[in-house]
Amino acid sequence: MKKLINDAADVVAESLLGIEAAHSDRVRVDHENKIIYRKDSPVSGKVGLISGGGSGHEPMHGGFVGMGMLDAACCGEVFTSPVPDQMMAATVAVDGGAGVLHIVKNYTGDVMNFEMAAEMAAADSGVRVESVVTDDDVAVQDSLWTAGRRGVGVTVLLEKLVGAAAEEGRDLDAIVDLAKKINGQGRSMGMALTSCTVPAAGKPTFDIGDLEMEVGVGIHGEPGRHRLPIAPAKDIAAMLVEPILADLDYSGAPVIAFMNGLGGTPLIELYLMYNEVAKLLGKAGIPIARNLVGNYITSLDMAGCSVTLLKADDDLLKLWDAPVNTPGLRWGC
Amino acid sequence: MKKLINDAADVVAESLLGIEAAHSDRVRVDHENKIIYRKDSPVSGKVGLISGGGSGHEPMHGGFVGMGMLDAACCGEVFTSPVPDQMMAATVAVDGGAGVLHIVKNYTGDVMNFEMAAEMAAADSGVRVESVVTDDDVAVQDSLWTAGRRGVGVTVLLEKLVGAAAEEGRDLDAIVDLAKKINGQGRSMGMALTSCTVPAAGKPTFDIGDLEMEVGVGIHGEPGRHRLPIAPAKDIAAMLVEPILADLDYSGAPVIAFMNGLGGTPLIELYLMYNEVAKLLGKAGIPIARNLVGNYITSLDMAGCSVTLLKADDDLLKLWDAPVNTPGLRWGC
Repeated sequence: MKKLINDAADVVAESLLGIEAAHSDRVRVDHENKIIYRKDSPVSGKVGLISGGGSGHEPMHGGFVGMGMLDAACCGEVFTSPVPDQMMAATVAVDGGAGVLHIVKNYTGDVMNFEMAAEMAAADSGVRVESVVTDDDVAVQDSLWTAGRRGVGVTVLLEKLVGAAAEEGRDLDAIVDLAKKINGQGRSMGMALTSCTVPAAGKPTFDIGDLEMEVGVGIHGEPGRHRLPIAPAKDIAAMLVEPILADLDYSGAPVIAFMNGLGGTPLIELYLMYNEVAKLLGKAGIPIARNLVGNYITSLDMAGCSVTLLKADDDLLKLWDAPVNTPGLRWGC
Repeated sequence: MKKLINDAADVVAESLLGIEAAHSDRVRVDHENKIIYRKDSPVSGKVGLISGGGSGHEPMHGGFVGMGMLDAACCGEVFTSPVPDQMMAATVAVDGGAGVLHIVKNYTGDVMNFEMAAEMAAADSGVRVESVVTDDDVAVQDSLWTAGRRGVGVTVLLEKLVGAAAEEGRDLDAIVDLAKKINGQGRSMGMALTSCTVPAAGKPTFDIGDLEMEVGVGIHGEPGRHRLPIAPAKDIAAMLVEPILADLDYSGAPVIAFMNGLGGTPLIELYLMYNEVAKLLGKAGIPIARNLVGNYITSLDMAGCSVTLLKADDDLLKLWDAPVNTPGLRWGC
């Protein structure tokens, strides 16, 4: 295993120290509970937004804490759910009197622990908590780690859009409706050229041949739909875009197109892939209104990519364009 | 070779199509000459800023074209200098009447071709052209590809800072002085855990064992100072920071600290490394005034990192904080 780490047991804790050292203008870190908070949280009168999950997907979620996105992110160990106590502490801490939304990727541990935390926070502190579960990955219906589809790229877009809506003062009911609408209008699919290596395991999560790729891979290296020979970028783009378009009617609306890298893929390849995706959408008559290209929801050092297409409308585009100031996404301020 | 590409011969051209498709709000692309232009260039009365070099280091330089940074980037084939004709075309195109600065990393081909382009542009079109050559890499005095030190991470910081100065209307003489001052006040050093694979070569640039690292590596995989057994992050940080501090007197000023990934290194490791660098600077009594953490000057899919420390003053910090709107760096707008 080749990684820039000290001890595998300390990777998450030491990375949090680095985030705090680099971004103390925008975030503060509760190291005991492994929670990254927006520096000025709780924001009075604003719906509090919390997400979290296993580490190893950076910048998601900790890099999306700040003005215009999340109020807090709960960081589990690598590829391991945070515990209910973390989530409850964050829930109580970010409540500015307008309630709290939990943004939960559909993985069994995350869903169960966020549910428990919501009940604990409501019972102990009277905080009103709602939740949205993202399940946008069309690759598989159930997987190793989920009942139902996995939550992936839509989560990033949802955190941006709902973050902007909370910032403008929309109430919890409106935020919940918006979050559910976004999840319903977005689909994703990913593929891997290589496995990833969890520091504590010290060896790759799965084996893959020198001339193979895994199509439909999950963000923890869960198996996908097919193990296939590696193919040209244009064919890979079609393998990702076609199942998305087959799963949801994208007619009549522009999309926010998200070309995501899984951590070990350089930008030159992501832009090349984005070009292929844009060509396919052009042929399908689907206009791209906004886009995001880069490594945003990752799987440690995995080489590969995922495509997310979110049906947009004027409200979503306005929310997308609103200012955001986080370590991982920043514009307008 | 596992890459998200179609044909190795088309990687740069197709990646440029992707950049144009994604960022046509901010840039336009001359595909014949492989030049990325700021969309509204030439900006009348503003000093034009051009950089360029071999591709494979993205987002540098094409991702740094836009308001507050470069007016144009000339893209060579992967790890291959652009040609003088490209550079001349860009020079003439971005001149808004205030002259043009060439920002050149110290590699023999880049230096020679930019010099020739400057002479051609001056002779043919009467554009006043000045240049700055960055040579901040303390690892080696001469290398495979250079006479003198290599230009690396300081180039990114310089493009941001000089970009802001040009935006505020400073004249070419002032811009040249500023650029030389920045290069003189910054030092870098990098290391690699893995090699990188140039698409046209199809195999790794160098061999490295499963338990080895290359300390002082160049951004094209050029050999560094030492081939050593892999070490804990804190020791690696010391191997990068100590030669930098030994090479320049950093006392009495804060620094802009740049923790850069080489393309295949995930963010969780870069933040962990940033923490180690911050601790070392703390012990050395050097305050960090600003920082940048991420994959900004890369070597294709290489796993590894580099550290750049730039001595700052109030003027440089003000320029750092000024708005920038490029695909790769954006804040304040």
